[in-house]
Amino acid sequence: MVLRLSTLFLRTLREDPVDAEVASHKLLIRAGYIRRAAPGIYTWLPLGLRVLRKVEGIIREEMAAIGSQEVQFPVLLPREPYEVSNRWTEYGEGLFRLQDRKGADYLLAPTHEEMFTLLVKDLYSSYKDLPLSLYQIQNKYRDEARPRAGLLRGREFIMKDSYSFDIDDDGLEASYQAHRGAYLRIFERLGLEVVPVTATAGAMGGSKSEEFLHPTPIGEDTYVRSAGGYTANVEAVTTVPPEPIDFTAAPAAQVLDTPDTPTIETLVTAANAIAPRPEGPWTAADTLKNVVLAVDLPTGERQIVVVGVPGDRAVDLKRIEANIGRHLPIGGEVAVEAAGEEDLKKHPGLVKGYIGPGLSLDKPVLGTEGSTKLLFLVDPRVVSGTSWITGANESGKHVFGLVAARDFGWDGVIEAVEVREGDEAPDGSGPLEAARGIEMGHIFQLGRKYAEVLDLKVLDANGKLQVVTMGSYGVGVTRAVAALAEAYHDEKGLAWPRSVAPADVHVVAVGRGEEIFAAADRLAGELADAGLEVIYDDRPKVSPGVKFGDAELLGVPTILAVGRGLVDGVVEIKDRTTGAAENVALEQAVAYVVNATRG
Amino acid sequence: MVLRLSTLFLRTLREDPVDAEVASHKLLIRAGYIRRAAPGIYTWLPLGLRVLRKVEGIIREEMAAIGSQEVQFPVLLPREPYEVSNRWTEYGEGLFRLQDRKGADYLLAPTHEEMFTLLVKDLYSSYKDLPLSLYQIQNKYRDEARPRAGLLRGREFIMKDSYSFDIDDDGLEASYQAHRGAYLRIFERLGLEVVPVTATAGAMGGSKSEEFLHPTPIGEDTYVRSAGGYTANVEAVTTVPPEPIDFTAAPAAQVLDTPDTPTIETLVTAANAIAPRPEGPWTAADTLKNVVLAVDLPTGERQIVVVGVPGDRAVDLKRIEANIGRHLPIGGEVAVEAAGEEDLKKHPGLVKGYIGPGLSLDKPVLGTEGSTKLLFLVDPRVVSGTSWITGANESGKHVFGLVAARDFGWDGVIEAVEVREGDEAPDGSGPLEAARGIEMGHIFQLGRKYAEVLDLKVLDANGKLQVVTMGSYGVGVTRAVAALAEAYHDEKGLAWPRSVAPADVHVVAVGRGEEIFAAADRLAGELADAGLEVIYDDRPKVSPGVKFGDAELLGVPTILAVGRGLVDGVVEIKDRTTGAAENVALEQAVAYVVNATRG
Repeated sequence: MVLRLSTLFLRTLREDPVDAEVASHKLLIRAGYIRRAAPGIYTWLPLGLRVLRKVEGIIREEMAAIGSQEVQFPVLLPREPYEVSNRWTEYGEGLFRLQDRKGADYLLAPTHEEMFTLLVKDLYSSYKDLPLSLYQIQNKYRDEARPRAGLLRGREFIMKDSYSFDIDDDGLEASYQAHRGAYLRIFERLGLEVVPVTATAGAMGGSKSEEFLHPTPIGEDTYVRSAGGYTANVEAVTTVPPEPIDFTAAPAAQVLDTPDTPTIETLVTAANAIAPRPEGPWTAADTLKNVVLAVDLPTGERQIVVVGVPGDRAVDLKRIEANIGRHLPIGGEVAVEAAGEEDLKKHPGLVKGYIGPGLSLDKPVLGTEGSTKLLFLVDPRVVSGTSWITGANESGKHVFGLVAARDFGWDGVIEAVEVREGDEAPDGSGPLEAARGIEMGHIFQLGRKYAEVLDLKVLDANGKLQVVTMGSYGVGVTRAVAALAEAYHDEKGLAWPRSVAPADVHVVAVGRGEEIFAAADRLAGELADAGLEVIYDDRPKVSPGVKFGDAELLGVPTILAVGRGLVDGVVEIKDRTTGAAENVALEQAVAYVVNATRG
Repeated sequence: MVLRLSTLFLRTLREDPVDAEVASHKLLIRAGYIRRAAPGIYTWLPLGLRVLRKVEGIIREEMAAIGSQEVQFPVLLPREPYEVSNRWTEYGEGLFRLQDRKGADYLLAPTHEEMFTLLVKDLYSSYKDLPLSLYQIQNKYRDEARPRAGLLRGREFIMKDSYSFDIDDDGLEASYQAHRGAYLRIFERLGLEVVPVTATAGAMGGSKSEEFLHPTPIGEDTYVRSAGGYTANVEAVTTVPPEPIDFTAAPAAQVLDTPDTPTIETLVTAANAIAPRPEGPWTAADTLKNVVLAVDLPTGERQIVVVGVPGDRAVDLKRIEANIGRHLPIGGEVAVEAAGEEDLKKHPGLVKGYIGPGLSLDKPVLGTEGSTKLLFLVDPRVVSGTSWITGANESGKHVFGLVAARDFGWDGVIEAVEVREGDEAPDGSGPLEAARGIEMGHIFQLGRKYAEVLDLKVLDANGKLQVVTMGSYGVGVTRAVAALAEAYHDEKGLAWPRSVAPADVHVVAVGRGEEIFAAADRLAGELADAGLEVIYDDRPKVSPGVKFGDAELLGVPTILAVGRGLVDGVVEIKDRTTGAAENVALEQAVAYVVNATRG
C-alpha cells in the first residue's frame, strides 16, 4: 500500500493550534492526524485513523487471547437501566442526556455496565454458561467541565470496555488476573510504559481495583511509589493507623483562653506560651484541625461535612472525593470543596477558627449525634487515646488534652489529608515518592453490585439462583494514541513506535530530476510489494526542506530519501527515532528497510 | 479461527420476537446476531458483528479502489454548521438534539455534509488539491416516528457516507460515475441484487440522484420499471406533458347547475345527464379535481396548498412530499396530508366539493394571486388549452369548458398523482410496472449548495476563488446486513452468501462418542489451519436435532457433520443454501471444504 502525499488528504501546519498546551495535542493537529470539531470532540483524518486502527487491532488480539468476545452496544441508550443502577442521577452533569420525539429519556453512554449486565441476563441462565468475558470498542461520552489536552480528556472518545461474569469470587479473581495480564501485554505491544497502581473503586462501587498509569509529568493523576515496589493512586494510599493508646492515666482536658488564634500557626505559638510542656514544644501535629467541607451530591443537594485531621497536614480534596462515598447517603461522583460563608451561616454552631468535636462524649458538637448534626469524619491518625489541642467552640478558646474516644467520638474514618513524599508505604516497603501519570487503563472487581440491582442471577450446580459477580475493565483507546504521541516525539515532531505507526516507511523524492522520481516511485512500489505500508512524498514542486520537515513531523519510523546520492547509486535511510542515517546501495534499499521494519 | 459453541456468547431462540414482522428481523434475533436495546436501537452480538465487519470490509476495499480516503467524524456535533445550512430546523423532529452542561446545542449526526464541507475548507485552498473523495463508516441517528423491521429502519444505524469535491461540473460527473461504479461492485460482492433508479434529490437539494434499491416485497420504496430499461423511484417518475392545444376556437366556459355532485363520480353522472357531448360520454379524466392539502413545514408551520389534477387520478402524497420543496418558502423535509375540517374553516373561500380555480384569469379564486391566496399547483397534464369540468366555487355548481391558460392560471406544476402500471415511461421505453425495494444506497450530485452556504471555495488556475461542487454518497451498512438476511434465508433459517457469512464452515459433532468429538475437534483445527473461519458445535450434551437446527438457523454456507458415518471413515458435508449433502472421506474433508469455500 502506497499513500502518495500528492493526493493524501493532509495538510501539515507550522503553527501550534492556539488551544493546545501539551505536545501530543499540538503535534497530532499539526501533523494532520486529527482536527477539532467541537470542545473535546475530534475528527480523525486518514493518518490518525490508521494509528487508531492499529491500537484497536492490538487490543482486539489480546482480548481474543484471553477468550473475551467482541460485541457492540449502541451509543444511544435508554434511561431505564441507568435509573435502576441510580447512575442516571449519580453521573450528575457529566452525563449527556436527551429526549426522543416521544419525550422518552436517553443518554449517550458514559460506560456500559448496565447494558452488559442486562444482555447477559437476557441470554444466560446457568453457571455452566460462565465464566464469560465480553468486550466492545465503542464511543463513550462524558460532558467534562473542562475538556483539555486534545485526546487526553475529550467528551467523545473511544474506549475498549470489557466485563467478566463469574459464579464466584475465585472466578472473578481469575478473570481479573487474566485481564491484568492482557493489559500489561497490550501496553507492552503498544510501546507504552505503564505502572499498575492500586486505585479506589470510586464511583463504580466494587472492591479491588488497579489503574494502569503511564508516567508523564503532564499526567492528571498523581501516584506514589516506594523503593520496595508499592504503587498506588494518591487517592488510594492508605495510612497505617498508629496503635491505640491507653488513656486511663491521661489528665483531664482543660479549656484555656487562646485569644486571636484562628489558625494552626497562631494556636501553636499561643500554646507554647501559655501551656508549655516538658517533653518539648507543641507542634502543629499536636493539634486537631476541623475542616468544614461542602459536598455536592449527584442529586444536586449540598451536604456539609466536618473532617478532623492533624494540624500539620493539609486536607486533600481529591482523596476525600474518592473516599467519602461510603459515608454518604447516595453513591456516585461527588465534588468536595471548602465550605463557603453561605454554608457556614446555616450552621451557627460552628465557630470559625475554634471548631472542635465537643468536650465530652455526652455533649458532642460535631457528628450526626452532636448538636450540629453534621457528619464528622476523622483522619486514620486519630485513634483511641490520642490527645489533641483543638477548638472549644467558643471564640478565643481551645481545649488542651482532648482525648479521642474518651472525650470525643466520630462518625467515621476517612483518608482526608495529603500524602507526602517520605510518608511510609502502607506495606512497609519504604518511604513514598510522588509521580504523575495518565490513566490508560483501569480494572475493577465490581462484585455483585450491578448484578444485584439488575437481577442477573444464574442457577448454580445445586439448582439454586446465585447472583453473578462481575469485573469491569477499560482501556482508553483514543487516549492511548495521545499518550503514544506524548511519549514518542521530539522537537521535530512525532516518532511513532513501529507497532502503531501509520506506515512503515516514508519515501521522500528529493530534488527535481525525473530519474529521482522514477527511482523513488519504483522503490515505493517495491516496498509495498514486500508487504510494507509506504508513505511516498511524490509532490513535484515542494522543497527538500519542507519534505524532510514533514517526514519528521509525521513520524514514520524509517525515512528513505532518494536524492543527490542516486548518481552514485545510493539512497539515504534514516531512523526517525535515533536520527541515525546511512547511505545504502539502491539495490539493497528494500531489503534494508524490510529488515529494519521486521527487526 | 475456531468459534466453539460451548463458549460462544450465543443463545438461539425458538420463538420469533413479538415485535418482529419481517424475516430478517426475526431471524437475526433468533439466530443471536443482534438484540434490541431500545426501539430502533440494537446491540451487535459476536456473530452479527462478524457479518457487519465483512460488509464494512468490502465497502472499504471498493472505496479505496476509487481513491476515496477514510476519515471519521464525531457522532456528537455542534449546532452551528447545521444552523448555517438550515438543517438544524429542516430536520424537524427527525433530529436528536441535546445540550451540554453549558447549554450549548448539539445534535447526533443524521448525516455529515456540513462537517465534510468545513473540514475540506479548513485544510484545502487550491484547485490543485482536487478532485478529492473522503468517506467514513460511522453511526447515524434519525429519530424515526415509527422505527420498524429491525435493522431496516432503525434510529441508530451505520452508514458509509462519502463526499466528493470537484472544481467543476465535469469533475463532479466523473466523481459521481466513479461512485456509481463502486456501488455496483459493492452490492455485487455482497451478493445483494440492486436496481439503480432515478430519484428525487429530496431534502438534500442538488440535482442528479440515483437510489440503489434492493427489490423485495417488504421494501418501503416503490419504484417503477419499463421493459425498455427505465427505472425510477415512484417519487421521481416524470409525466410527459401533452402538447398545448390551440384554444382560439374553443367555446366559452359555462356554469351549470349540478346539484349534489360533491364527488367526481356524481359529477360525471350529472354531466352526462345535463350536458351530453357528441364525442362520447364525459369521464373522470375530463374533470379537474382540486385537492386541498396541508403541508407541515420543518418550522412547525402549516401551509395550505391546492393541487389541481385530472379527476381520474388519485393524488400521491409521497410524490407531492418529494416534489413540493421548490414551491415552498423553506427547504427540508415536509409532511403532506389532506387538509382537515379545521384547516378548511380558515379558508371560507373554499366551497367543499365545488372548488375551482375561478372563471377567468382576471378573477382567480385559487393561486397566490387569487382571492384565497392559496398556492395552486397543477398536474403536468394540465397544459395550455386543455378544457375541464371543475368546481364553480358555489355549492351545486360546476363550470364546463374551463380552458387552461385562457380561463385559469396556476402557480406551478407538480408531480402530484399516482403513477399507474401501464403509464408510459417518460423516455418512451414502454409501459411502467411497479415493484418494491429497500433503499441500499443513494448517490447525489449535491452541486454547490453546501459549499456555497459554508463558503468552501478554492483558487482556480487563474487565481480566482471558485465555489467547489460536491457529491454525496451513502450506503446503509447495518441495513445491508438486514437486506442480506432478507434475501438469503429459508424456512429453516439464514443462509449467508460466502462473502459475508460469519464463518466459512460449521462443524457439528453429532452423537456422544469420544471418537466423534476427537475427529470433529481435529477437523475443526485443520480447517482453521487451512485459513478458514470455523464455527464448531462442540456442545457435549446437545441433541443432533438441536445442533442441526442451530446450524441451519445460523446459516454458515457449509455444514460439516461428524457422526455415525465416522465408523465408515466418512463425514457429511452439506451446502446450506442448496441443501445438497454428500458423504466425503474423512481424509478428503478439509480439501473438499476449502475447495467449496474458495470456489
